[in-house]
Amino acid sequence: MRDSMLFRRWETFNKGMDRESILRSFASHLEYSLSKDKFTATPHDLYLALSLAARDRMVERWIHTQQTYYRADAKRVYYLSAEYLIGRALVNNLINLGIYDETRAALKQVNLELSDLVEQEPDAGLGNGGLGRLAACFLDSMAALELPAYGYGIRYEFGIFEQVIRHNRQIERPELWLKAGNPWEVARPERAYVVHFYGQTRHLTLPDGRLKVEWVDTQRVIGMAYDYPIDGYGNESVNTLRLWAARASKEFDLEYFHHGNYLKAVEEKNLSENISKVLYPNDTFFEGQELRLKQQYFFVSCSIRDILRRYLVSHRDFAAFPDKAAIQLNDTHPSLAITELMRLLIDEHELSWDVAWDLTVRTFAYTNHTLLAEALERWPVSMLGNLLPRHLEIIYEINRRFLREVAVLHPGDNERLRRVSLIEEGADKHVRMAHLAIVGSHSVNGVSELHTRLLKERELRDFQELLPERFNNKTNGVTQRRWLLAANPALAELITARIGQG
Amino acid sequence: MRDSMLFRRWETFNKGMDRESILRSFASHLEYSLSKDKFTATPHDLYLALSLAARDRMVERWIHTQQTYYRADAKRVYYLSAEYLIGRALVNNLINLGIYDETRAALKQVNLELSDLVEQEPDAGLGNGGLGRLAACFLDSMAALELPAYGYGIRYEFGIFEQVIRHNRQIERPELWLKAGNPWEVARPERAYVVHFYGQTRHLTLPDGRLKVEWVDTQRVIGMAYDYPIDGYGNESVNTLRLWAARASKEFDLEYFHHGNYLKAVEEKNLSENISKVLYPNDTFFEGQELRLKQQYFFVSCSIRDILRRYLVSHRDFAAFPDKAAIQLNDTHPSLAITELMRLLIDEHELSWDVAWDLTVRTFAYTNHTLLAEALERWPVSMLGNLLPRHLEIIYEINRRFLREVAVLHPGDNERLRRVSLIEEGADKHVRMAHLAIVGSHSVNGVSELHTRLLKERELRDFQELLPERFNNKTNGVTQRRWLLAANPALAELITARIGQG
Repeated sequence: MRDSMLFRRWETFNKGMDRESILRSFASHLEYSLSKDKFTATPHDLYLALSLAARDRMVERWIHTQQTYYRADAKRVYYLSAEYLIGRALVNNLINLGIYDETRAALKQVNLELSDLVEQEPDAGLGNGGLGRLAACFLDSMAALELPAYGYGIRYEFGIFEQVIRHNRQIERPELWLKAGNPWEVARPERAYVVHFYGQTRHLTLPDGRLKVEWVDTQRVIGMAYDYPIDGYGNESVNTLRLWAARASKEFDLEYFHHGNYLKAVEEKNLSENISKVLYPNDTFFEGQELRLKQQYFFVSCSIRDILRRYLVSHRDFAAFPDKAAIQLNDTHPSLAITELMRLLIDEHELSWDVAWDLTVRTFAYTNHTLLAEALERWPVSMLGNLLPRHLEIIYEINRRFLREVAVLHPGDNERLRRVSLIEEGADKHVRMAHLAIVGSHSVNGVSELHTRLLKERELRDFQELLPERFNNKTNGVTQRRWLLAANPALAELITARIGQG
Repeated sequence: MRDSMLFRRWETFNKGMDRESILRSFASHLEYSLSKDKFTATPHDLYLALSLAARDRMVERWIHTQQTYYRADAKRVYYLSAEYLIGRALVNNLINLGIYDETRAALKQVNLELSDLVEQEPDAGLGNGGLGRLAACFLDSMAALELPAYGYGIRYEFGIFEQVIRHNRQIERPELWLKAGNPWEVARPERAYVVHFYGQTRHLTLPDGRLKVEWVDTQRVIGMAYDYPIDGYGNESVNTLRLWAARASKEFDLEYFHHGNYLKAVEEKNLSENISKVLYPNDTFFEGQELRLKQQYFFVSCSIRDILRRYLVSHRDFAAFPDKAAIQLNDTHPSLAITELMRLLIDEHELSWDVAWDLTVRTFAYTNHTLLAEALERWPVSMLGNLLPRHLEIIYEINRRFLREVAVLHPGDNERLRRVSLIEEGADKHVRMAHLAIVGSHSVNGVSELHTRLLKERELRDFQELLPERFNNKTNGVTQRRWLLAANPALAELITARIGQG
């Protein structure tokens, strides 16, 4: 049914990098994609049309990059982060495509200033600060280095709030960044996963004697993918940032609807879709806020299943999984990914615990962002067990096996066991997410030399003693080219003149 | 700032009607608009790409048609309807563009069947039956006759429910027609109106002695426009169906958000957006369902303000309004438009009652759809007064003046006054929407000869005696060409062969 003729390389002006082609694409999108003329085009339409023209120039490269990864069965890097402070895309993409100057000149021909169009773009404020900006810089850099990388996160309907000063007071307003359409995302309705919450587990013994655990009576939410192209500077690589949006699994209950109870009818829908509604306003820890925990599991579950799906396109078993997938956890927010991979490998793909655990640890790596014990994420055991009963069982089993090893190395040192346990004991038990991330990863890094040294010497000293080979440092950086080119083009030019583009 | 060079007629393959151009557009949309290749394109992507290719061929005509209307300052027909049963657009548009056969042949070249793609389109089930289908047929026919017509309605997120048979039982499921994207609509974020509900009126005397009424302390919802092109058969006219979607005016309350009360935070947003969430499942009357009344006022308020905005582009006063705008009410659902136009002319544009009323009656016309007294819409005075206090005042004033005229013609006939009054008296007073529509219109039609005769002789006999010149008949029809071409192409061909295309 698919005819390769349809997908041959057609002659088109959508990919020309000269100012005539850019202008033509721009005019074409204004007319055909937005149905606007000179009387009706708004400044925002001009921004949208130019963005679509820039996106056109990324699409062929995007498709080609992904095809190359598939054909090579390349090892992929998966970056899991609850935040991506990607900011505005237009200027960044024009620079990376190498058509910033040509585009400015093309617009000048029709008496438009590129900077006016750029100002129309709302900020994709999907992060609060350092952690989210780091994630965005990593995506940029991995594309620049032509690494087969994917970002995974949440498509927050409301990103970081806007600050407005009114009557000499700061007022916070929700950021409506998606309101007028987003030219940088492509909806992928065919990439949707059902995510489960609540319910209970059932432990069965199969006729052949094996144990099987089922997670039943769950509430379901659908995660649907939206893809963002991430282009590399000075090359033709275009990677993917895939963000998940929550959709109700039953959109609303028609029974209520027939009886006129509209609020009730849309309640389930709203409860579900709340999951991807808002970015929490800062990265301190929100103890006891179940919605935050739901967000974390929601995007982690969709992402791990998407990673497994992609792996299984080219593989029949999981033996090569750690050689084909590296999953980096940006802080502990995505650390439930460790338990989700364990659950899928054991409960759905029927691997043994030992095989699954070996694959898991060899696949995961964890970036620690904080030295403050009080900023380390911990979730009440009762809440986590209620929301994710199977995952709590897996956490307890990971912990049981881990503490058994520690006890062998340090016999009788109960105080040490208490300190390294994944569970903080007490009247109100908690799961220590950092401990889960460390035990479930083969690599743990701090984000500066000092930070990593202090981690090893103080906060995580017990773990450093137990698992010294896991600890290392990756100092945070910035995407220099973008930063410099956007902030100070003249300085960038001077540097290039002296040391070249390299 | 707007350079006409940008809007010159560029050479493009987006408008060619030959199979090579169609195929090229189709392939281009698959790649550039959807970022898909032969490995990743889904059947739904093929439908989307072909629809976008068809839409491209309507855009230039659409823009040109609208420009022509503006330049000619043409009298516009505005069709207001709570329902449009437009069904699937792809086949209809290919037929109207005259490229149905050419498109089928183009797809055959790449081994695709047009009928398979057509099957992917979800039904735009924005109506329940006859009334909604009539509205869609009127739009089709007005485009075929090259009349400057606009449809106005509601962009229901969920249209008519799907019927599924499961376990030998009919199950109703919400129709998720917008889920995977709608290639036929163009969002118009710049066409948004704030719609008010609740609150109270304040009657002021201005320094010059005039009275002024303000409607204050209201709750606000935003109506945002989505436009659908409606192309004419065998000509180059493309008219607009403009549907309104409800958006919360304050997206959510950040105060609640900071305190972790997420449900509360999105409550206002959800309450507002409920307005355009669902199409009521059939067209019998929903007494007491405030949301239905909200829907009616919501789309009527946005539409009337959009109509006034368009008129005021070329006019400085309202003297010519009835010569430039004819507003047709499809059943009584949009009859609050009469009070909304009165309110805007009097309270915002400061016309006198008599001038405003004359303009209003000369502008409106009303189509009656039912002979059954119990199916005629009536709203509790208490509910209408609570939701729309200013409109209830206007209804009372219309009624006072109307009954005064009736009393002059039929002195002492209190029984007649009781029968024709806009208000049904009693312990539980109601507003009779059909009486409002009749009194506020210069033309009232039934939808078949028998129906109109019975209206005049029985149901509306009092009004026929009072206002005989207003009553007339317009028998419902179908869009023959579409109906015949789609249902029985062979018969259509035979007829064309015998009597020609005319």
